Amino acid sequence: MEHTWRCAITVADLGEFGIIARIIGRLPQFPAVLLGPGDDAAVLRAPDGRIVVTTDLLLEGRHFRRDWSSPYDVGRKAAAQNLADVAAMGAAPTALVVGLGLPGDLPTDWLDGLTDGFRDECAPIGASVAGGDIVRSERIVLGVTALGDLGGRAPVTRSGARPGQVLAVAGRLGRAAAGLALFLAGRAGTSARFAELEDAHRRPSPPYACGPAAAALGATAMLDVSDGLLQDVGHIAEASGVRVEIDARTLSPDEPLAAAAAELGEDPLRWMLTGGEDHALAAVFPPEVRLPAEWQVVGRITEGEGVQVSGHEEAYGGWDHFRS
Amino acid sequence: MEHTWRCAITVADLGEFGIIARIIGRLPQFPAVLLGPGDDAAVLRAPDGRIVVTTDLLLEGRHFRRDWSSPYDVGRKAAAQNLADVAAMGAAPTALVVGLGLPGDLPTDWLDGLTDGFRDECAPIGASVAGGDIVRSERIVLGVTALGDLGGRAPVTRSGARPGQVLAVAGRLGRAAAGLALFLAGRAGTSARFAELEDAHRRPSPPYACGPAAAALGATAMLDVSDGLLQDVGHIAEASGVRVEIDARTLSPDEPLAAAAAELGEDPLRWMLTGGEDHALAAVFPPEVRLPAEWQVVGRITEGEGVQVSGHEEAYGGWDHFRS
Repeated sequence: MEHTWRCAITVADLGEFGIIARIIGRLPQFPAVLLGPGDDAAVLRAPDGRIVVTTDLLLEGRHFRRDWSSPYDVGRKAAAQNLADVAAMGAAPTALVVGLGLPGDLPTDWLDGLTDGFRDECAPIGASVAGGDIVRSERIVLGVTALGDLGGRAPVTRSGARPGQVLAVAGRLGRAAAGLALFLAGRAGTSARFAELEDAHRRPSPPYACGPAAAALGATAMLDVSDGLLQDVGHIAEASGVRVEIDARTLSPDEPLAAAAAELGEDPLRWMLTGGEDHALAAVFPPEVRLPAEWQVVGRITEGEGVQVSGHEEAYGGWDHFRS
Repeated sequence: MEHTWRCAITVADLGEFGIIARIIGRLPQFPAVLLGPGDDAAVLRAPDGRIVVTTDLLLEGRHFRRDWSSPYDVGRKAAAQNLADVAAMGAAPTALVVGLGLPGDLPTDWLDGLTDGFRDECAPIGASVAGGDIVRSERIVLGVTALGDLGGRAPVTRSGARPGQVLAVAGRLGRAAAGLALFLAGRAGTSARFAELEDAHRRPSPPYACGPAAAALGATAMLDVSDGLLQDVGHIAEASGVRVEIDARTLSPDEPLAAAAAELGEDPLRWMLTGGEDHALAAVFPPEVRLPAEWQVVGRITEGEGVQVSGHEEAYGGWDHFRS
């Protein structure tokens, strides 16, 4: 019997310029990119004379784990959470630039998976990974910056909500939180019913196109739900000087969410109200706006301050990236 | 005798939103920022319909040490190395967005120093810190993205150098490397003569205005010297399909550099040719261009490939971020 030793090629074997060449070779560049990777900086089109820009840091062990998420999922998720911030301004994402901190012993397969994840989250919406930086790091670090185009529209900020308007959500709520709870409880992979929740934790599916569409419909405030609906609409309440009333009766957990909650003895509504990372969009519209099917009305704006949940007794909290 | 215990306030005491408010309060926003920190994304002017964008990761222990550099210096350096990349395209930097990974026990004084460093590197050139992200991290992580405006000019890439043109440098060479060598040898702080070299390691002083000026003068290729002149002009040689000949006789070490080299038994020319982090600009110009005093001609472009150093016998190498 013969034993075969498989020696994984690592990123240290490639060296900095080998890594860069390998990444660039896997990334298509779309027309918004006038000058792509390989120079001191990229040059992007900004057709209406403005650019939307947002940045996030993702750290291994804190924002993802290599034993829970594939490299492909990590890339998809890192791209998604930044692209969603661009969409939440009412803009169409055009490009990412990515700073990568990589351990020297990271297999090149892992790097390829990560690159493909970035590519596949960006390409369907016509966005490119237009540049980046590679450094050596003990743990994986991702510094992701997304840019986007407002298409002539005003940005939709958090401060335009007015009493009498309605709060609506596009995308899903609570699913990433349910998936994370399954992982934390050691129940991930135990039932096919929960697979889509585990996938939702691994990578969100933000409704990107709903962002610019909401701006065109006349949304007065918008943000992406990254820290939980309750906490995030609290930012709209504060910035707009209004009260947001969420009607919990409009939030009905679907079957997988209800089943996972029953399995773990959890409250599915808690996941929907306080669970982050699904990157749904929450927006405020004047009451006369006829909302497309992607949007579900979940509350209303009144005089006052803070966020109130009606139709439910329990008090809910949010998420502080720093204290948790 | 009375003992007073001074309890430092930490960033964990402030929490995520307290940290953000504290940072924002110290940062001026200049007119290129249409919407600054506090929303899902920032909105910047891009007056000529294009935007230059570049990103870098800086990791504590790898790119800076808290015992060698003050927080203010770390902020200045992190901003400078990104702003220099923008200038090296021929663009005027307009804004940064910054992802911050911070340990919970980091004193708020440290955060304030860092913020002020970013501010003071940006403000003199009219650039703003327009947004960011805060996460908790064991060690400090900085993900810095810089954006800039080409002012209607074509970007100056690495690929436009042609035989017969001249290579020139604006800014200083070898000083950050000399300062680092003094730190590594435990000789930092031992002589006032070396203070400016140690400062050069702590924070570079890139000649930002020379970038757009070089573009306006007709530079055909340009980059910022971050990994050493030899290695960096190698990128111009490769991208342009030419040979770069550096005349070592044009590189005369000034007094502090020569003194530090004598003290450490080093070759000052090695620092000037292979030392990174000064973020000088190296550019190629047609021979007929009359260069302002900021630019010093250090070589010429010929047919062929690679980089040759004439007037000196020794072979020199560069810097690979990944292997070193």
